[in-house]
Formats: sequence, structure tokens, C-alpha cells
Amino acid sequence: MDDFEISCKGLYRALCIREKYMRMAYQRFPMITSQYLRLIEGHEWRPEDQVLPVFTPPPKEGDDPFCTKDLPENLGYVAHMHHGVIHIYKTEADADDHKPIDLPIIDYDTFIDDMNFLIALIAQGPAKTYSHRRLKFLLSKFNVHEMLNEMEEMRELKNNPHRDFYNCRKVDTHIHAAACMNQKHLLRFIKKSYRVDADRVVHKLKGKEVTMKELFASLKLHPYDLTVDSLDVHAGRQTFQRFDKFNAKYNPVGASELRDLYLKTENHINGEYFANIIKEVANDLEEAKYQYAEPRLSIYGCNANEWNKLSCWFNRHRVYSPNLKWMIQIPRIYDVFRGRNFVPNFGKMLENIFLPVFQATIDPHSNPELSVFLRHVTGFDSVDDESKHSGHMFSTKSPRPEEWDIAKNPSYTYYIYYMYANVMMVNQLRKQRGMNTFLFRPHCGEAGAITHLLAAFMTADNISHGLNLKKSPVLQYLYFLAQIPIAMSPLSNNSLFLEYAKNPLLEFHQKGLVVSLSTDDPMQFHYTKEPLMEEYAIAAQVFKLSTCDMCEISRNSVLQSALSHEVLKLHYLGDSYLKEGPEGNDIRKTNVAQIRMAFRYETLCYELNLIKNGGKSE
Amino acid sequence: MDDFEISCKGLYRALCIREKYMRMAYQRFPMITSQYLRLIEGHEWRPEDQVLPVFTPPPKEGDDPFCTKDLPENLGYVAHMHHGVIHIYKTEADADDHKPIDLPIIDYDTFIDDMNFLIALIAQGPAKTYSHRRLKFLLSKFNVHEMLNEMEEMRELKNNPHRDFYNCRKVDTHIHAAACMNQKHLLRFIKKSYRVDADRVVHKLKGKEVTMKELFASLKLHPYDLTVDSLDVHAGRQTFQRFDKFNAKYNPVGASELRDLYLKTENHINGEYFANIIKEVANDLEEAKYQYAEPRLSIYGCNANEWNKLSCWFNRHRVYSPNLKWMIQIPRIYDVFRGRNFVPNFGKMLENIFLPVFQATIDPHSNPELSVFLRHVTGFDSVDDESKHSGHMFSTKSPRPEEWDIAKNPSYTYYIYYMYANVMMVNQLRKQRGMNTFLFRPHCGEAGAITHLLAAFMTADNISHGLNLKKSPVLQYLYFLAQIPIAMSPLSNNSLFLEYAKNPLLEFHQKGLVVSLSTDDPMQFHYTKEPLMEEYAIAAQVFKLSTCDMCEISRNSVLQSALSHEVLKLHYLGDSYLKEGPEGNDIRKTNVAQIRMAFRYETLCYELNLIKNGGKSE
Repeated sequence: MDDFEISCKGLYRALCIREKYMRMAYQRFPMITSQYLRLIEGHEWRPEDQVLPVFTPPPKEGDDPFCTKDLPENLGYVAHMHHGVIHIYKTEADADDHKPIDLPIIDYDTFIDDMNFLIALIAQGPAKTYSHRRLKFLLSKFNVHEMLNEMEEMRELKNNPHRDFYNCRKVDTHIHAAACMNQKHLLRFIKKSYRVDADRVVHKLKGKEVTMKELFASLKLHPYDLTVDSLDVHAGRQTFQRFDKFNAKYNPVGASELRDLYLKTENHINGEYFANIIKEVANDLEEAKYQYAEPRLSIYGCNANEWNKLSCWFNRHRVYSPNLKWMIQIPRIYDVFRGRNFVPNFGKMLENIFLPVFQATIDPHSNPELSVFLRHVTGFDSVDDESKHSGHMFSTKSPRPEEWDIAKNPSYTYYIYYMYANVMMVNQLRKQRGMNTFLFRPHCGEAGAITHLLAAFMTADNISHGLNLKKSPVLQYLYFLAQIPIAMSPLSNNSLFLEYAKNPLLEFHQKGLVVSLSTDDPMQFHYTKEPLMEEYAIAAQVFKLSTCDMCEISRNSVLQSALSHEVLKLHYLGDSYLKEGPEGNDIRKTNVAQIRMAFRYETLCYELNLIKNGGKSE
Repeated sequence: MDDFEISCKGLYRALCIREKYMRMAYQRFPMITSQYLRLIEGHEWRPEDQVLPVFTPPPKEGDDPFCTKDLPENLGYVAHMHHGVIHIYKTEADADDHKPIDLPIIDYDTFIDDMNFLIALIAQGPAKTYSHRRLKFLLSKFNVHEMLNEMEEMRELKNNPHRDFYNCRKVDTHIHAAACMNQKHLLRFIKKSYRVDADRVVHKLKGKEVTMKELFASLKLHPYDLTVDSLDVHAGRQTFQRFDKFNAKYNPVGASELRDLYLKTENHINGEYFANIIKEVANDLEEAKYQYAEPRLSIYGCNANEWNKLSCWFNRHRVYSPNLKWMIQIPRIYDVFRGRNFVPNFGKMLENIFLPVFQATIDPHSNPELSVFLRHVTGFDSVDDESKHSGHMFSTKSPRPEEWDIAKNPSYTYYIYYMYANVMMVNQLRKQRGMNTFLFRPHCGEAGAITHLLAAFMTADNISHGLNLKKSPVLQYLYFLAQIPIAMSPLSNNSLFLEYAKNPLLEFHQKGLVVSLSTDDPMQFHYTKEPLMEEYAIAAQVFKLSTCDMCEISRNSVLQSALSHEVLKLHYLGDSYLKEGPEGNDIRKTNVAQIRMAFRYETLCYELNLIKNGGKSE
């Protein structure tokens, strides 16, 4: 075999691996890529092979998004964790014998095999050379396209009535709920709350209930004097390469008491302020009309009660908006919890995180509040400082989660596998029951080892950041071939890991990777009242994006998001949005030129065809 | 003399030249620099030597800014142009004999001498080396200051109650009225006007009056279909290095008829729409509360009636806002007018521009509307594409303005001298009469020859752009020593002349040049609803400015602006704002750390002291 064939066969197998993981978890994989994979195999591609995630449609006019009436019946199954993955059994007796009901699963050994194959592939000489050359070609091809067709694209957009960049739907695909307001907004909220609630008991200080007045007095400050400077939640030069300092910025005025009071769901006032701030942000989005956001709320896995508390907060304060799609973020901080003896082993943490979700899926009525909340949850995120090195290498010899009782943190990949495996299992059950499914959308490639991006290639529907794709041509090319969406936040990176001008966003976009723009943490990074617009404006200015570029990125953000099928069809993308290429684009809704769509589609097909040629030859 | 002395003596003389020009025109020159110049001469510095411009204070509660009651009486003088400069005579007979009243003037030959001295200085080896080394030193010194005192500055700001970057006053020091709204705003305005006024006669098409409906029909478009894309007023990649294409962007949908209708003071509806858009922009500024702008309106010099029409527009539509300070911009397009035979020579153009101002100053009642308007005018700007080369070198042999009847455009310097000379003359008369004076604030150093910056060093109170100071260390150092404010617009430059990351703003700021941030043309360059905040946000992100940096730049913008003494004292800078150094800074109003102010002041004194040492030695 020559180098070309070696590369194509490797890439083919890599794509097949991803396809398998996506299908099993009801995550997305491009139809066109599947079709070429079948061509290589000599099989027919069947439309029914395509799986899609299920998101809860918006409530009908007059319906209550918190209604518990139509929850499905109890299945009577039981769920237990087995080697870090929750399995479902018909009866307790089955569980004792470990005879789970028949749901496909990707076991540990298969995962390790697949991972090892990919680790070898991304280091393989021929594949590296081939991918590097193809990526270079993709970049040049886009530049040629731009020079030839830029004016033509613009002409298409000018002739497109009613629709321009401002009224194209855009989704903030990566934003943390605890930092979803800008610094000025938080300041205003704190001042207002003090004017109204100074004498209200809001906190427990050393076991004693205190009013807001007393709380601020104990911190030796008065909200009236507070400024954005003393609030001190904005990232600056001090946070560059210092994730620890950045995390500390979540504490207003450096006081964790204020973080508890204003930015937590669980506190003495049941997270009322936090809910109100979020509702104000949602209100701004609803008024802006064309903007949506996918905020992350935390589940830590410290104890099994977290889901109850969170869903209780959600229902009590009715934190619902059609412009918000909720995600759950799981911080990778087992080591901290183990160090404080909150959990005996990693398995217990996984159980705390996932078991309640399985139970509410099996018997929704057992926990109606959680069941309602889960209807509005669209996915799981995995978060923490990726630049921390774990020292552990995931392999067949790694301890099982229930045996992982040391204080050291497992590796990124270890976390990712167990999160994926549990999400996959619960999705299968939920899909069977006609419930919404979850996407796995980890933070990945913001810093740290390249293996993070490899694990996400196998398991994630889409990722946030992806900066490190710069470092591996093979993975970058695979992300292109599989059209894996990447939510990029260059302003966040600029404060933490990479200067703005060096951000690979423009290059990725030009090559045809599916990038979207997101804010990450408006509280820490943004200055204006419209953080997402600020993010687009700065990218447009620094990278000199054309209107067509910006609208394509907006369109990507909608495709990456968990907006429901019904909303996409109706408002955003048009009836044919599930089709790929120019056919699936309705310029009247997206303001993306057809000539651009055709270029993207033909380019992808060309690359896939090369792999077909190389992969097929014997 | 050694190189050090040669340099210092040259710089000393250069500063004296500027001091002279500033004093004669009632423009600003730093007290501390004057004091060092006197030390070199062995003279005492007298406070009465300091001159200041006069700006109209805001009307008192209940007073009408358009009131014509308190206009001064007729002086009975006559004004005539003599060699391009308007002189004032007691009587017509005096005018015939050219015996003007005794007002100091900088004549043509003096100007040429001073200019030639400066041209030699900026090319002189020792001065170049010396300035280059001092600037390098200033940059390193700031870096050291920052490393040592950054946290200390931040501490000062955190302890400063009530004030933060958001509620620091900031002035948009350079903005064109015809592009002061953003693209989305203009689009909305056009759509709204059509909904209300479709059947109104708004335009004359080939001599025939047409309604708005007919006008849009003749352009084959309907406002309902218009989008930001088809409006096509935003600069993009196409405008880089193409000032001509940029200028064409002033025409919405490429139609000059729409520019006439919406963005002109003089049209079939007497500029009503333009006035309304500006008032909406002013309203936004008033609501934002801490933002001011200094929009430019055009006087072309084609005929003597322009001032009447403009002031009539101003009074008729009552285009007044406490948050707007008006400026007059004079496009340098004599060649176009001469080519079309609108003016016989350059002198006539100057006369059209300046004579009405002199006449209204001598006899305000002769033209009350103009007199009222002039009360709100704070300065003159000179505008056009600086990269166009004129081919003419200003010297003693240049033709006088009345002899300049060729179609070729005079050089930048020629324009600048005659504008300055006339502004200086009228200022002296107005100062005598207790009227407000005008500043000369040309566009300068955006592109083109370095001599532009030299002419402005002699004549301008402050400038817009200044990019080319990069290219001349001597001029850059002189701009530092004389603390000449520079209104920079990096987003505008990014679309026209220089990529954002290469903008010298950060470097100038670090060295201690007095820079402010301005938008230039929000219609063409900005995306969000708050263009000035967008400008600050992008600079803060890309250049990683600290809060202290941003507040210092805001403070600079106020000092550069034509906000009146009364407003500055009361609201913005505090009672001592006329003092220099930390004494003149009220942190409670400016949010600039005293440690920063002390650093700036000591640094300037240190450099001036060096020049004193070198300049004094015999």
C-alpha cells in the first residue's frame, strides 16, 4: 500500500468509529459522510441508519412548560451502576445476577481499542502528511473561492429581502449560567437587591441567620459604594495562563458569600436572586428576538440530592424561557471531593451524577420536578482547567471507577468515557420512551493534551473551544470530515490562553470546519450590554469577516445548538434544513449565499471522494 | 555643540514655534512645557501668558439655546480678504488702503520660515537619534511602571466609590454627523419614514417634484425589503486602501438621492430627516448619560450662502443637545469645484468659508441664526483623503490664494496655513467681543506625507488619527512634549489604512502621548447600538488595556474635547482640572489612579528638564 492508501484507510476507520459512537448515543453524524463510508464498504446507505437527537419542542400556546400531567408511566425497571456505567434491569433479581435488559453498549475494552487505534493514527507519518496537505489545500481553495465569488455572494445577500446579519438567528452555544450576565448587570442587580431587601434574612454566617445589611456589614462594604472595579469579576491581564485566578473572579468583591447569595441555586434564599438575574438575561434575549443561549448549570456529584435541589430551584422560580436551552456541566474535580472525603471513590461520584437521571427516566412520577427539568435539559458538558495534567494514562489496566479511591484525579479521557457511556445508556432508554435525549458537549481542546480532542472525536456531538486542533493535522482534518461543530470563544481565550490575533477561528472557518461564536462568561470577558453581538463584532473587525461569513457562523451556531426540530423548521432554517449542502439552506432565513453553501458542500464531497478512492482500492 | 545640545536646542525652538501659534489663536499649550521654555530663556513664567479657548456654557435652566436676545451690537467694522486671510478694517476706506485694525497675525513668510526650520529639524540626524532614544526610553519606563504599580493602581480604583469605567465621562472626539448613526439605525429610520411619509413630496427628480413612494419606485426598490446588506453603507474588505470606495459608502443602496434625502442638511425637505436622525442619536447619548460626541457638519466653500443654509437648518430643527458639541469640517476638494467652475480661484473658496463667520462676528444681528449657530460651533476640521498626493510644495514661491486659479489642488500644508490664519483672526476678534472661540482640529496623519503632521504641530489644537507619527521620531517626541491630543479611531483605520493589531494606539498611550478613542463613522464601521463603547471594548480586548488605561483615555477625550469650562468643572474633572499633574486630577470624577497621574507628570517633567539642560548650556 502506498502512503495515500494507508492514510485513507486510517481516516476511513476513524470516521467509522465516530459514526458508531454517535449512532449509539443518538448524536449527529453528517449524512454525506455516512454515504461515502458506505460506498467504501460497497453497502447501500439507508436513510433509516440516520439517527437524530430529540429535543423537547416549545410548549404550545397556553401550555405550561412546568406541567407534570403528561409524564409517562413507571416502567418498573431498576437501575444500578456496574463498573461505572448505569445499567437497567427488569427486576432487582436480574440486577443481582447482572442481567441487564438488552441495550447496546460500547464497553470499556472496545473504547480502549478504538482509542488506541486513533492514538496511533494521529501519530502516523503518512496520515499526518496527507492531512496536513489536505488542510493546506482547503485553506487555499477557500481563498480562491473568496477572490472569485466574494462579490457574487454579496450580490446574493443584497437581493435577499428582509434578512440581514442582525435578524439572523444566532445561538450563544457556550455560556455558563453563573456568568451569563455582564459585570454591569450584576452590579446593578446587587444594588437593587439591597435597596429592596436590606432587612431580609439572606444568609447564614457561622450558623447565625443574618440580614443582607448584616452580611454586607460583615464584609465591610456598602452596595451603594460598589463599582465595577471593586466588584472585581472581570478577567484582565492577571488571568492570562492563570485558570486559578480566573476561577476566583467568580466571587464578587472576592467574597464567596456574595457568590453564594447571587450566583448559586442553593442558598438561604433558595437561589431566588440567581433565578431572577437569569430571567433578566433571558428577557433581554427575548427582546433582542434573534438571540438564544445555552447556559450551563452545575451538577457536582458530591451527593445524590443535587438533582433534586437543582430541579426544585428550576420549578420553584419557573426559570424557563424559549430563548434558553439548558445544559448540565460536570466539573472534573473528583480529587477535591475525595480529598475532603465527600465521596469514597470515583464510581460513587458517577452514580450521584447519573443515577437520578435514570430513575426519573424509568419512573417520571417518582420525581415530577426532576422529570420536568430534564425535559428542558439538552445535554451534558464536562468542565475544568484542561491545562492541569492528570498523570494518569487511561488503558485496560486503569482501575475501574468503583476501585478508583485514591485522591488523584482520573485523566480527561477517563472522565469522558464514563460520561459518554452513561449518557448513551440513558439516551437509549429515553428514546425508547419517547422522551428527549441528551447531547454530550464537553469543553475540549482549550488547553492540555491532544488526547482530549481525540476522546471528544469519539464521543462528543460537538465541543467548546477546540484551539488545540491547531496542533494535530490528522484530528483537525477528521473534525472537518465529520463536520463536528466547535463553539469558539476568542474573547475568553484572549483572557486565558491565547491572544486574540492568534486565535485559529478564522483559519478553521476558512478550511470549512464548523465553527460558531460563543461568549463563555460575559461577566468576566465582555463590556457591552449585548455580549454575543460584541463577540461577533470583534471577530468581524479583527478577522475582517464578510457578512456571508458572519451569517454562516450564525447558521452553524443554530445547527450546533439544541434548538428543537420544530423551532428550526419553522423559524430558522426552513423546511429542508435536514438536507445537506445548498438544498438544505433557505437563504431567506439564513442569509447565507447559496454559492457559499455549494462551495462548502462540493469541497466536503471532494475530500470524501478522495478517501473513498484511497480506502476502496485493494 | 555636541549632539545632545543640538537636539535640545532644536526641540526647544520647535516648542516655542508651537507655543506662539497656539497663543495667537487661543488654543491650548501645556503650562508645564511653557514653564520649562521660560526656564531655558531665563525669563519668569507668568500665569497671564496662558491663553485658553472659550466655549459657550450650557444654557441655564429654562434658557433657550436658540435665543437671539443677548447678541452683541454691531461693531461697524468691515471684513475683506487680503491674500487669502480675512482682515478687519474700521472703514471701507481703510480697507481700500489695506490698513486693518491692529490684530497680531502670523504672516505667510513667518509661517514658511517656521515650517522650513521644522522640516530641517525632523530630518536632522542628532534630533532623530535623540528623539528615537527618548521614545524608546518612555516606552520601557511605562512598562516598568506598569509592572511595579499595576496592582497599586487597581487598588486605588477599587477604593474609589461610585465611579468606574462605565460612569466616567467620555467624548467621541471625532465623528462625522452624516455617519453618526449605525447602519441598523439608518435602516430603521428609512423604513419608519416610509411608513409615515410615503405620500409626502420629498425630492425633485429631473425638475419634477416626487413623493417618497415615487422616489423609491424610481430606484426600483421598496423600503420594506431593505436590509443592512442592500443598504450597503458598511465598510468592508473592499474599502481597504480605497478611500474612493469608502466615500461611495455614504450613499445608501448606492443612490445619491437617498444620501440627499436622509444625510443632508440641504434638500427638498430642508434636511428634516437628517436633523431627526441626529436628534435620535443625541437622545441615545443623553440616556447613556456619560457619553458626548463632537459631530462634524460640512461647509464646502462653493458659495457664500452655505452658512446661511446650514444655520437655518440648525435653528429650524433645533438641533441642539447638551451632549453634542458641533464642529465644521472643510473638505479639501478645491480641485473638484474648480474643475466644475464653481469657484474662480482658491481665494474665493476661502472667502466663502470664512467671510460669513467674520461678518456675523462683527454684526451678529445682521444674521441672528448664524450667530446662534456659531455659538454652538466649537471648531474647524479639515478633511479628505490624505493619501492623495498634491504634487505642490508650499514655499515662498507658491501662488497666493487669489492667484491660485489652476484646477490642481493645493497641498495639505497650504490648506492648513490658510485655515489656521483665518481661524486665528476670527478668534482674536471673537475673544475681544467676549464670544466663544474656535479650535482648529484637522484630520492629520491618517495617511500621506509626514509634512501633514508638521503643519498640524504648528497650527492645530489637536488632531484626528496621527498614525503617521510612527514614521517620524522627532515629530512623535514633539507631540509628546507639547501633549497634543490625538483622537484615534482604530476601527476606522482597520477598514481603511491599517490593520487593527498594527495600530500604534497602544504604543502612543504607553509612551505618554495624549490619545483618545473616537468612532469616526459608526454607520460604516460599527456593529452595535453603542459605537463608542464598542470602540473602547475592542481596544480593551485587543490591547489588553487595564481599567486605569481606559479611564485615562476617557479623561484624555474630555480634555481634548470642546466641552465648556463650566461643564468640566462641575461634572467631569473637578475644580482643579486646569492644574496639571496629579493635582489636577480628581479621582472621584475621573477614576484615574493618582499614581498614574504622578507617573505621567514626573515623566514629562523629566523629559522637559533634559531639554532645559541641553538647551540652556552655551
